[in-house]
Amino acid sequence: MKTVLTTYLPQEGFALLHGMEILAPAPEQQCFTTDELEQLIVDADFLVSTFDYPVSASLLAQASRLKMIANFGSGYNNLPIDYCREHGIMVTNTPEPVIEPTAEHAWALLNTLAHRISELDRRLRMPGYGGIHFGVMQNLGTQLYGKTLGIIGMGNIGQALARRAVAGGMKIIYHNRHRLPSPTETLYNARYVSTEELLQTADVVSLNLPYTPQVHHIINKNTLRMMKPTAMLLNTARGAHVDEQALVEALQQKQIAGAALDVYEHEPEITPALLRLDNVVLSPHIGTGTWEGRVEMGKCVSRNILNYINNNIHLLNSVL
Amino acid sequence: MKTVLTTYLPQEGFALLHGMEILAPAPEQQCFTTDELEQLIVDADFLVSTFDYPVSASLLAQASRLKMIANFGSGYNNLPIDYCREHGIMVTNTPEPVIEPTAEHAWALLNTLAHRISELDRRLRMPGYGGIHFGVMQNLGTQLYGKTLGIIGMGNIGQALARRAVAGGMKIIYHNRHRLPSPTETLYNARYVSTEELLQTADVVSLNLPYTPQVHHIINKNTLRMMKPTAMLLNTARGAHVDEQALVEALQQKQIAGAALDVYEHEPEITPALLRLDNVVLSPHIGTGTWEGRVEMGKCVSRNILNYINNNIHLLNSVL
Repeated sequence: MKTVLTTYLPQEGFALLHGMEILAPAPEQQCFTTDELEQLIVDADFLVSTFDYPVSASLLAQASRLKMIANFGSGYNNLPIDYCREHGIMVTNTPEPVIEPTAEHAWALLNTLAHRISELDRRLRMPGYGGIHFGVMQNLGTQLYGKTLGIIGMGNIGQALARRAVAGGMKIIYHNRHRLPSPTETLYNARYVSTEELLQTADVVSLNLPYTPQVHHIINKNTLRMMKPTAMLLNTARGAHVDEQALVEALQQKQIAGAALDVYEHEPEITPALLRLDNVVLSPHIGTGTWEGRVEMGKCVSRNILNYINNNIHLLNSVL
Repeated sequence: MKTVLTTYLPQEGFALLHGMEILAPAPEQQCFTTDELEQLIVDADFLVSTFDYPVSASLLAQASRLKMIANFGSGYNNLPIDYCREHGIMVTNTPEPVIEPTAEHAWALLNTLAHRISELDRRLRMPGYGGIHFGVMQNLGTQLYGKTLGIIGMGNIGQALARRAVAGGMKIIYHNRHRLPSPTETLYNARYVSTEELLQTADVVSLNLPYTPQVHHIINKNTLRMMKPTAMLLNTARGAHVDEQALVEALQQKQIAGAALDVYEHEPEITPALLRLDNVVLSPHIGTGTWEGRVEMGKCVSRNILNYINNNIHLLNSVL
């Protein structure tokens, strides 16, 4: 059995597959080239994919015995799903190990924004402290305690974010395709509302839903206009949820108070105006990006491969 | 009855004192000058002090009918306590409203550091994104979930930090002058340990104790050497808890992994080497610094003054 990784990943995550043939690029190479992958995939049984390398149908067309793509990540918009479906290639993902790292990163980004930490840290490092003065009424931030967090997409990550926010004294409202069972709502004292009510009343709007074409630009000129002028937007889901140009305009015109973003519409490009705004905190798509998280994701990928081999189909994190 | 504020503060906080004479500097002045205060204090009944303006014994010597200093803040090392004690001037502080803002800021700073948000945000804003590449194995942070937070000083702020950390999946160990009652320990699943054990085993060491000369430089060359090379230091208490030069050396030599600081030994000066380190997050003493927090602190100061006037001595947040 032969497994090919498109991308360099920590070996610790793949120790479970000892004895199997595993082909991965060197750390310094980051990803195999398409030429290399077209050679390697010919007799591969498993392909491990990441969002660093979008897999094309034409690459998969070279594979003669590919059984499964074990995606390293939860979102799988880096894969040609229709092709996989038509050709009976199974696809798995890693939903469980990304929950806590992503919720932790979302909460971290929001706190950084509310307390202006990255702005003030940046200015303290400028000559003359960038004009910063210490003082009781200087550099005031926004308190999250007592405010309302509106979560759009109340799956596992949304709930792990809610757990942190409740401990931070926030009230939770949410919208989801399906309303959560009452005991789960009670856990977070969360109130189910329409997307409109959420946008109109939340002090923080957090996007925690998967990307599908139906929710493309769910945050756009119109929905931004529904938000409060004091509200902040938090996006750790997918860049295409947000019309980035409309967001820039809303921020520049102080239509909303700020944004904390881990993902971008035209990733890795970031709309340049965002880089010049102080009421914005940016991170380079590291929502799940802790070393510990990467190792756990590798273990989950390995378990998916082993479960396929051992025919434990019911244990697979299958998305197709 | 006449109240003098050393510092400009939000009026909303002092609405409770309507009808009373209140003298405060204009917003753009920040603090009265010492000359102005020496005039104003002569017939003042109450003085509202902040950490922006250290009150001297010689200023108080001008006062003929001063009854109480209502400090705007929890720590009161900005006041000549011995003089107040000798001259029967009562001193109150605002312990309650600073709890949640300070714990929120401590948690925010730690998350910013662990996920490298301020470093990466800063670099994204540099030309060419400061050399940042998006990628699965790029820009990895440290996960807090599953790690151990060691809290030195488990008072109200320490406990409010613990509540957030527990929701974030951290284990809690703590040291305090007095061990907490068992039900309180259970609330945070917190284990009481010696300072030494805490320093040796915690992944994050957080200082949440008040400043007294006995704990001057509690973090020094020797105690830094006890910490793990992967450990991070979090100081939102007082700058003089830390030998800042020793900290710089420990960080430069990678003896510890990072530091998140809101307070500085020689405030508002910051040891310049700290400003050049990427494994450090800095904020300009804004631990309690949210607008909402400032208003709540003003209300607490006002209640202290009213309770004095109404002779509700048992309701005062008296520190002398």
